Amino acid sequence: MTVSELLNSMKHGGFTCRKVALATDLFLDMIQDKSCTTFLGLAGALIPGGMRKILYKMIENDMVDCIITTGANLSHDLLETSGGSHFHGDNQLKDVKIKELDFSRIFDTFISYESFVKFENLLQKLLDNIPNEPMSTRRFIYEIGRYVTDPNSIVRLAYEREIPIFSPSFADSMLGVQSWLFSQTKPLKIDVLKDHTEFSEIIYNSKKMGAMILGGGVPKHFIMNGSQLHDGLSYAIQVTMDRPEHGGVSGASIKEAVSWGKVTTDAKWIDIMGDVTLVLPLLVTGVLSKL
Amino acid sequence: MTVSELLNSMKHGGFTCRKVALATDLFLDMIQDKSCTTFLGLAGALIPGGMRKILYKMIENDMVDCIITTGANLSHDLLETSGGSHFHGDNQLKDVKIKELDFSRIFDTFISYESFVKFENLLQKLLDNIPNEPMSTRRFIYEIGRYVTDPNSIVRLAYEREIPIFSPSFADSMLGVQSWLFSQTKPLKIDVLKDHTEFSEIIYNSKKMGAMILGGGVPKHFIMNGSQLHDGLSYAIQVTMDRPEHGGVSGASIKEAVSWGKVTTDAKWIDIMGDVTLVLPLLVTGVLSKL
Amino acid sequence: MTVSELLNSMKHGGFTCRKVALATDLFLDMIQDKSCTTFLGLAGALIPGGMRKILYKMIENDMVDCIITTGANLSHDLLETSGGSHFHGDNQLKDVKIKELDFSRIFDTFISYESFVKFENLLQKLLDNIPNEPMSTRRFIYEIGRYVTDPNSIVRLAYEREIPIFSPSFADSMLGVQSWLFSQTKPLKIDVLKDHTEFSEIIYNSKKMGAMILGGGVPKHFIMNGSQLHDGLSYAIQVTMDRPEHGGVSGASIKEAVSWGKVTTDAKWIDIMGDVTLVLPLLVTGVLSKL
Amino acid sequence: MTVSELLNSMKHGGFTCRKVALATDLFLDMIQDKSCTTFLGLAGALIPGGMRKILYKMIENDMVDCIITTGANLSHDLLETSGGSHFHGDNQLKDVKIKELDFSRIFDTFISYESFVKFENLLQKLLDNIPNEPMSTRRFIYEIGRYVTDPNSIVRLAYEREIPIFSPSFADSMLGVQSWLFSQTKPLKIDVLKDHTEFSEIIYNSKKMGAMILGGGVPKHFIMNGSQLHDGLSYAIQVTMDRPEHGGVSGASIKEAVSWGKVTTDAKWIDIMGDVTLVLPLLVTGVLSKL
Repeated sequence: MTVSELLNSMKHGGFTCRKVALATDLFLDMIQDKSCTTFLGLAGALIPGGMRKILYKMIENDMVDCIITTGANLSHDLLETSGGSHFHGDNQLKDVKIKELDFSRIFDTFISYESFVKFENLLQKLLDNIPNEPMSTRRFIYEIGRYVTDPNSIVRLAYEREIPIFSPSFADSMLGVQSWLFSQTKPLKIDVLKDHTEFSEIIYNSKKMGAMILGGGVPKHFIMNGSQLHDGLSYAIQVTMDRPEHGGVSGASIKEAVSWGKVTTDAKWIDIMGDVTLVLPLLVTGVLSKL
Repeated sequence: MTVSELLNSMKHGGFTCRKVALATDLFLDMIQDKSCTTFLGLAGALIPGGMRKILYKMIENDMVDCIITTGANLSHDLLETSGGSHFHGDNQLKDVKIKELDFSRIFDTFISYESFVKFENLLQKLLDNIPNEPMSTRRFIYEIGRYVTDPNSIVRLAYEREIPIFSPSFADSMLGVQSWLFSQTKPLKIDVLKDHTEFSEIIYNSKKMGAMILGGGVPKHFIMNGSQLHDGLSYAIQVTMDRPEHGGVSGASIKEAVSWGKVTTDAKWIDIMGDVTLVLPLLVTGVLSKL
Repeated sequence: MTVSELLNSMKHGGFTCRKVALATDLFLDMIQDKSCTTFLGLAGALIPGGMRKILYKMIENDMVDCIITTGANLSHDLLETSGGSHFHGDNQLKDVKIKELDFSRIFDTFISYESFVKFENLLQKLLDNIPNEPMSTRRFIYEIGRYVTDPNSIVRLAYEREIPIFSPSFADSMLGVQSWLFSQTKPLKIDVLKDHTEFSEIIYNSKKMGAMILGGGVPKHFIMNGSQLHDGLSYAIQVTMDRPEHGGVSGASIKEAVSWGKVTTDAKWIDIMGDVTLVLPLLVTGVLSKL
Repeated sequence: MTVSELLNSMKHGGFTCRKVALATDLFLDMIQDKSCTTFLGLAGALIPGGMRKILYKMIENDMVDCIITTGANLSHDLLETSGGSHFHGDNQLKDVKIKELDFSRIFDTFISYESFVKFENLLQKLLDNIPNEPMSTRRFIYEIGRYVTDPNSIVRLAYEREIPIFSPSFADSMLGVQSWLFSQTKPLKIDVLKDHTEFSEIIYNSKKMGAMILGGGVPKHFIMNGSQLHDGLSYAIQVTMDRPEHGGVSGASIKEAVSWGKVTTDAKWIDIMGDVTLVLPLLVTGVLSKL
């Protein structure tokens, strides 16, 4: 049975089953609507969770026009580029023991101290190429991508395809820390306010806006906030495990965003409760089979 | 891309992605271990969620030796048998309005008043055939299955395949209410303590025990409790959205069950956080492709 | 600062803060409405979670007219009556180790093997007093309560105050297992269908219905199902950590129950997302201070 | 009954009940340990959720030495300063209707368009005072606080008490958007890398580190990341509704942070599953009664 056939039969189910199947069609509509600029929001441990190839395929197959991400996803992409690895293991291991073994744990994924060293070495080399002028995070990531040689890197592919990547909170990540260390001895000027200038230009140039929002956080808020400069999102898909009752942005329903003008009153949208690592491979495989 | 190929690539991911892929292999091991009796626990709105066909395939393909379920899943199976339907719709509709339209809502699934009437009529006819003697819920459901003619019914298929179905809390369901109404004028004697006699016999006749636990509740607890009569479960897979921190059984980790002797100390097990309606179709399709 | 003052200031907050404060007032309204029969649904590990005294106070202070509970809450009440204990400890301990030490774990609560033995001995003695005639779970629990001497027992207090306790799924609990073992050598006849007869009588005798539903499961469903015999609940408070998106009854919103006629169209209700062990002490203390 | 008495009795309960009571004692230990610098992480809609006064009390009573927050909490503090309000209402209202009424919704909290206008006017005035030189977000917020006159403002109080506030992702907030708009015509230079310089100085000057982490996100990550420059946190309390299984930072267990060296191997810590709006008032009231 193909994934596409499975998704078709899932439309006849209910709850999350049906939502994922319908979201596959909706995402296809979004990316095939030539008047729609598709934004991709990335929060959560997506690269440690094995989503690097899926995200690569999304960029490679023109499923996304603009990416907004936490610094962590950039850091872990470049960690793999540097020769570092994400291992899988037993999340019942004692963390004191894990530390003694020179590993760090992300639920059931493990990273060696050695991998971090490789990442840091790579970063210091890459940063040496960055022009000495104030820049947005978009430009900063673009300049990094220019010097990445790893063909599997998302940062590299986005550079090649000229897909802008914004990371408004990048300072709070391993990439941010390396940038700060670099800036102690060499010039590096990041102007996060410039992100708004460049992001709003993309928005003003969009006829319609659509978004695939994976995991909430700053990337979700940044896209939603930007959409207020427009009429709001015309298409929206959100995949999160967080929930709306506590008022935080990561769990807020898409429906709620209508009241803010962040989503148009006649938008097509689907909220999916689920772990991105399960939902995204299914959804992207389904879309790929129909492109 | 086939579902099987997708599951293979998901093994290289992390978090829920990898767990679902590994659980597919583990479930295959469980059902192919000839010394293992496989128990299936069913809680939650699985039939309204569209899982009837998947559960049918599980029985049809010898994936399960014994079923423990809420009364609701039996009721909704028989509701479809009676000609009733589960419709999909907009969960943003006002519930006062839904009621006025003579529908009832289960999140985004809807059932008409007419469907309930069909179900009730079917049930009263079926119950007329039940022998007038004290019986376990297992025997009761078996006797119902004998007179169901719908070839798509799980209750019917389980009868034909002689797969026992226990429903220790069946009284608390539409099936239970119909049974009670019937018992007002005609004899019907259900002895829930007999369930333990028959269930423990199945357990004593098992070399090993394995369980696929969907959704927690009484079915989970009944299987786990029974496993204490044995050495505990040797294989266990659990799919639930509930969480362990509040101490309730539906969210309790499988790991915790080791302390109770409900799971063997060297058991193979996987806890999956997710909606059954998304996880089960993927997992069962994967297993079917390898059988 | 008194709890009452804290609750008053919490009304000016948002989200769960405000909901708990408003639910305190709503529960007060419910129990002070003389035309309202108040039902209490108990699911989850409430006694292991330390709620025995709070539930005792609720019965003692006339906050409840009828209780519907899992068998587990009855079992753990009687386990404490038997001299057994619920200990608190470190939930990071290895479960294999906990088992070796002859303890069983419920998240961060521990029960010794010795406590279970005490419970079993008590139960076999109590069951010897039960009349040899078919009875509802309500009558069965009432008969047990008659012979319990522990003044701190909920089962005892409910007997004294003539507060009916139903436990439709009691067979699936330690109490159920002990009842079954007892029934192997001595007569014991539980007729779960009789629960409907007695529960519906209480409902028909109610002018209005109100419910405090703690934790979902069978107790929630049994109350909600019964309320359809009436016009639905006029007051409802629900405290659960489960969520609505997967369709299961434990997470279903109260709003949804309006479509089923389980809650009146003009009912006053509040859904609270939270662990009962945190919400209930606050709420009951608040109510007590105003009685 | 006082809150303090309630918390004392909650220690004898289990699960979240006990955790909140123990966390109150742990927080007291943390702030009374004179060698410990206490960091407060603020994410989620805390000000809309009514936590402004509680946070104010925490600063006023020396419970915190350094704050890390999302821009949203600063924005909503200043929105109230500007004369704007957070209203409470019915989250069942149609969002299209809410928008027509010129309100925006955060779950069950509402903000009028008029409030946003007041906020924007206030901000443009405040920003006029900011020195024209590159500054960290800490310095930026401090300079804003200097010109706020509202005695109820957290930003103002932190300025007066010289409690540093970092907001590494402030650009992604209403405050960030206003700063950007201002920067289109007047000079404003925010250097987010400088945050690391100033934050690491605070860390290097700390004998021990402790943290109260409310809601995850960038504030949690920033504190945890910084703690790696030290030996890790010696005390940690986390309150979040997110969960660990998907690998994201907001739900990650404190235990996991031990493997990263973000928490010392012998630290005292408590993970609380709950809505901050419910847990924090209880906890802070408990601490206040013992100071």
